[in-house]
Amino acid sequence: MALQHKGLVAETVPWRFVEKDAIAFSGQKSVPVLVDGDKMISDSWVIAEYLEAAYPDAPSLFGGPAGQGLALFVKFWCEQTLNRIVLRIILPDLFACLHDKDKAYFRESREARFGTTLEQYALPPKEGVALLSSALTPMRSSLERQPYLAGVGPSFADYIVFGAFQWARSVSPVALLEAGDPVFRWRDRLLDAFGGFARNARSCVT
Amino acid sequence: MALQHKGLVAETVPWRFVEKDAIAFSGQKSVPVLVDGDKMISDSWVIAEYLEAAYPDAPSLFGGPAGQGLALFVKFWCEQTLNRIVLRIILPDLFACLHDKDKAYFRESREARFGTTLEQYALPPKEGVALLSSALTPMRSSLERQPYLAGVGPSFADYIVFGAFQWARSVSPVALLEAGDPVFRWRDRLLDAFGGFARNARSCVT
Repeated sequence: MALQHKGLVAETVPWRFVEKDAIAFSGQKSVPVLVDGDKMISDSWVIAEYLEAAYPDAPSLFGGPAGQGLALFVKFWCEQTLNRIVLRIILPDLFACLHDKDKAYFRESREARFGTTLEQYALPPKEGVALLSSALTPMRSSLERQPYLAGVGPSFADYIVFGAFQWARSVSPVALLEAGDPVFRWRDRLLDAFGGFARNARSCVT
Repeated sequence: MALQHKGLVAETVPWRFVEKDAIAFSGQKSVPVLVDGDKMISDSWVIAEYLEAAYPDAPSLFGGPAGQGLALFVKFWCEQTLNRIVLRIILPDLFACLHDKDKAYFRESREARFGTTLEQYALPPKEGVALLSSALTPMRSSLERQPYLAGVGPSFADYIVFGAFQWARSVSPVALLEAGDPVFRWRDRLLDAFGGFARNARSCVT
C-alpha cells in the first residue's frame, strides 16, 4: 500500500517462511525486504521512512513530522493489541493455508513464542471478533468523525492497521467486522484504493 | 498546556461541580469553557481546534492536518483506556479532595455512570497501577524511540495524555509510574515545560 501510495512500481517475490536463502542477501531472516537500486531496507516501518525520504515529491506517507511521530504510536498500538487478537482468530485458517514445507517451522517457532500450542492459542471466532471489536473502539470513534486515521486522506497510519485486516482476509473467511461499523467502511475504502489493489490481491480463501 | 503552548495568557476561574450558574452563560454544564473576546468555546478538543485556527502564527498544537487527525485517535485512546483506569485508581483520593458541597452531586452522578458505588468502582492502587502500566505499552514503545508522541517536540497529543496524569497528581499521592519508565521521563519533561507550569499547579495533595 505504501508503494502504491508513492506511485512506485515494484516486482514482488513470492516467498515461504522456510525459504531463508531467498532473503539471505539482505542479512535478514524475515520479510518485508525492499530492494531499491543498491539500497536494501527491511522492516515495514523503516521501509516507509525510507520511501518518504527517498521519494519526497511523491504523495507523502505521513503528512509531515507530527504525522510521522504519531503514526509510530498507531504502529505499536496495532502490533500490541489488534495484531495479536487477529492472529488468534485466524490461526487455524492461517495454519491450514501454509505450504506443507512451512508447517513444522511455523508450529515450532510460534508455539515457542506463544508458550502454548497453536490449538490452545486460537480463539473461537465469535469470542475473538468481540474482543477485536472492543479493541477497535478508539479507532472507531475517530473514524466516526473523519474518513481516515490522519484525517481526510489515507496515510501510512491507515496502511499499518489495514495490513492486519488484509493479512486476515488473505487466509481466513471469518468476518472480522460488521457491515455497519465505521471501521468496516474504512476498510472497504482501502480495499477500493489504487484501483482495488488490495481487493484483488491473491488470497488462499476460495 | 495548550494555552501555554500558544503563548496565550488566560484568566482562570476556580469552579466546583455544583456551581453550574458560573458557566450558565456559555450554555454548558461542564468544563472546560474558554471565553476569547466574543467567542465562547467548550470541550477541550474543540478548544484546541479553535486555538490552532485562531492563532496560526503561534506554535502549532498539531503540526499540520495529519498530526491533528492522528491526535484525535490519541484522544479517544486516552479517554477510553487510560482515563478510566486512572479514575479507578484515584477515586478515593479524588472524593476526599472534593468540597463538601460537591460530594453528594459527585457520588450520585458518578454512581449512575459507573453502575456501581464509588467504593466498588475503585481499584486497589497496586492492581490499578499494573493495569495502567499494561495499557501504556504502545505509548511506552513510542517514547522509547522519540521524546514526545508526535516526535521531537510536545504537541496537543501529549497534552491530552498528560492531562490524565496531571488530574491524578492534583488529587492523589499514588505513584502511577515508576522512575525508570520512559513515560515517567516524558511526564517529567512536561511537568518542567513552560517554566514548571504544571509542576507548580495547585494540588490538593499535601
